[in-house]
Amino acid sequence: MATIDANPASGTRDYLPEDLARRDAAFGTIKRVFRQHGFDPLDTPAFERLEVLTGKYGDEGDQLIFKILRRGEHAATGQADLALRYDLTVPLARVAARYGSQLPQPFKRYQIAPVWRADRPGKGRFREFYQCDLDVVGSASLIADATTIVALTDALHALGIEGYRVQVNHRRALAGLVEAFGIPVALATETLVALDKLDKIGVERVGTELAERGIPAAAAAQLVAALRRDDAVDVLRERLSTTTQGAEGLAEVDRLLTLIGSVAGGTVTFSPVLARGLSYYTGPVFEVIHDELDVTIAAGGRYDGLIGMFQSQDVAATGGSLGLERIMLLLEAQGNHVSVGPQVVATVVDDIHAATTMEIAQSLRGAGVTVDVYAGSGKLGKQLKYADRRRAKIALIVGQQEAADGTVTLKDLVSGQQSTVTQDDVVPHVLRLVETIDGLGK
Amino acid sequence: MATIDANPASGTRDYLPEDLARRDAAFGTIKRVFRQHGFDPLDTPAFERLEVLTGKYGDEGDQLIFKILRRGEHAATGQADLALRYDLTVPLARVAARYGSQLPQPFKRYQIAPVWRADRPGKGRFREFYQCDLDVVGSASLIADATTIVALTDALHALGIEGYRVQVNHRRALAGLVEAFGIPVALATETLVALDKLDKIGVERVGTELAERGIPAAAAAQLVAALRRDDAVDVLRERLSTTTQGAEGLAEVDRLLTLIGSVAGGTVTFSPVLARGLSYYTGPVFEVIHDELDVTIAAGGRYDGLIGMFQSQDVAATGGSLGLERIMLLLEAQGNHVSVGPQVVATVVDDIHAATTMEIAQSLRGAGVTVDVYAGSGKLGKQLKYADRRRAKIALIVGQQEAADGTVTLKDLVSGQQSTVTQDDVVPHVLRLVETIDGLGK
Repeated sequence: MATIDANPASGTRDYLPEDLARRDAAFGTIKRVFRQHGFDPLDTPAFERLEVLTGKYGDEGDQLIFKILRRGEHAATGQADLALRYDLTVPLARVAARYGSQLPQPFKRYQIAPVWRADRPGKGRFREFYQCDLDVVGSASLIADATTIVALTDALHALGIEGYRVQVNHRRALAGLVEAFGIPVALATETLVALDKLDKIGVERVGTELAERGIPAAAAAQLVAALRRDDAVDVLRERLSTTTQGAEGLAEVDRLLTLIGSVAGGTVTFSPVLARGLSYYTGPVFEVIHDELDVTIAAGGRYDGLIGMFQSQDVAATGGSLGLERIMLLLEAQGNHVSVGPQVVATVVDDIHAATTMEIAQSLRGAGVTVDVYAGSGKLGKQLKYADRRRAKIALIVGQQEAADGTVTLKDLVSGQQSTVTQDDVVPHVLRLVETIDGLGK
Repeated sequence: MATIDANPASGTRDYLPEDLARRDAAFGTIKRVFRQHGFDPLDTPAFERLEVLTGKYGDEGDQLIFKILRRGEHAATGQADLALRYDLTVPLARVAARYGSQLPQPFKRYQIAPVWRADRPGKGRFREFYQCDLDVVGSASLIADATTIVALTDALHALGIEGYRVQVNHRRALAGLVEAFGIPVALATETLVALDKLDKIGVERVGTELAERGIPAAAAAQLVAALRRDDAVDVLRERLSTTTQGAEGLAEVDRLLTLIGSVAGGTVTFSPVLARGLSYYTGPVFEVIHDELDVTIAAGGRYDGLIGMFQSQDVAATGGSLGLERIMLLLEAQGNHVSVGPQVVATVVDDIHAATTMEIAQSLRGAGVTVDVYAGSGKLGKQLKYADRRRAKIALIVGQQEAADGTVTLKDLVSGQQSTVTQDDVVPHVLRLVETIDGLGK
């Protein structure tokens, strides 16, 4: 057969054991924290009927949906009837519509699952990637917003990520800001898009952008002057609170900050220019930014209009998500150690004693030890290299002499020391060795 | 907007929290056991380039592959360039070809992941379902076969499944059987297909089927006569061992049984008529059958010709898989309890004291307790119903009186008893209550 390219499809990745172990460990930590906050897990199919997804992500998003060809006699039509999940929010909306009263009210769920987007693959941009969403469906209470933020920051803390800031704002505070500076409502979105870039491009370029976007010069100048001040947050806060909307939004932000209290390993503050790109937010919005790297590692907000898309009524909802791709890079950079591979590699010196080795391996597993019986063909030297490659701590050897004596040789692969013990003593001896090597000394 | 059907796509399922918790718990157990046997995790993308999958599953299989439409300017062509994973073996073969020397030799991996097949949906037949594969790539040793079987049976045992039999056979023993009864080699497959049904349809109908499939009457009669005997296994064993192939196969089976030893919660025996449908097996084959339900819950064998499909050489490989769908049904029928929901639901009586409740909830979480702060709007009665619905053990109440006194009321939702403790005492008190209710008494 002609050789076929053995790479994964463009924009997708294979997870080899060490990467996967690191990913699984992180996911396990996140899930544990989310559950601690009363969120339940949910899983939905990889694909949905096409009509469930189309029209939900705007024209640009629709172009990026992976569509699945009809099958059988319909394959020749070249038409699609199914499509791969593009995010986890639309499936949640479908689940909320389908199972309504079967779910607790409010319904607090998390979902950590891959989504697929036909984006042009690039550095850090994939066509298959994991999303990690946390949402409270069916609650208009700020407690839902606060719970979401605290669960996300607790998850970051549990992952060992410190030094981040949670910036909180409110769509009504933003509307108040625009109003307070005398900017016409029709230009609100243009204004917010420019303001949202403050962290990235700085005050002066925000000024340029405001002008380019047609914001009246006087208003833009006032806004830029306020942004230039060291006490910009206080100035903007005071200014926007003079409007009804601004005061309402601000009151919700303050109440939210009170409910959140302090967060482990980070800070929480009001950020009057945080807009978040997505137009569907209706209440509080937030972003979690890693101080050192200055990148967003979590974000979210209230979106009361969205979850009801498959129902005849609006459903209050708030949520957030962790930026898993960035977080995994961060954890890798921090050198988080995740152990893979067995604790013990049992070598097989000859066929005759292999069954004894298998039996000893089973008794060790019964005591909770991870044992890999070498399954290849190779002399002892090659097997010990395999044990090193697997990062095993101990090699177990039952050769002719050992079999004749009813003993087992254990080689500490860290120190290189060998000891020979009776078969009856293998389990306690290995347990002690593993503890000593791990430095647990329990 | 017109109402859209909120059901998942035909042949797929939503996993609501309790189902998902049960599934995750089972997967966790299986992974733990597989790792204990030195198998590493692997994950591959949901879709592959179309040419990676086509031509690998026969004409019938090819029809069942979900194909993904090309995108952008190519969408109009109605052509596909990607396809959803149909099994976990072809991706493994691709990974073995792609990463070869980066992987340990032999490479022992497991993968538990969904696959997609455009089968007609029906009772117990889905278009999205999980496969659980365990394979050793790059070893011709019977230790690899034995390790696979023991890891699978240990996983069944760890899941609490008892009462199963492992039936082992060998492709060469089967060839020897056919030869020993004087059946022409050209009719070997026809014979094995009929024999493989023995468990399902019984001796007499196997006889009919042999005749229908054109097996010479004399040979068929001899075979049926042997199968009718109480000591059929011994008779067939003796008969097939008179041929060179049969004797070779039998020797490997016996050696395999020795290496396996005993399996926890089940039995292992030689089964001379076990054929396994798949033509790609080249050595030992096995099936694990649940005694009571008489269904196959695990199966596998050696398939030395398959993993090399993306390389210029054959690669020795053996493996097996757990029948997850059946196993999950079994666990459900056994009433395996998997707890979901929080241990404590913290009620919120009024806005003023919500922040105090949030703070107490955080200190409980710090002590390892799962706390769900009620995020909806509702009076205390409704909140206590929610706590019941979530199967919480304790409701925590900070009302006006409690707030004034600096106390917290704890309601044991099992006994209905209430107690009021100071805020400083909440953590130890809740820990004691949880332990008492769980009956752990640690």
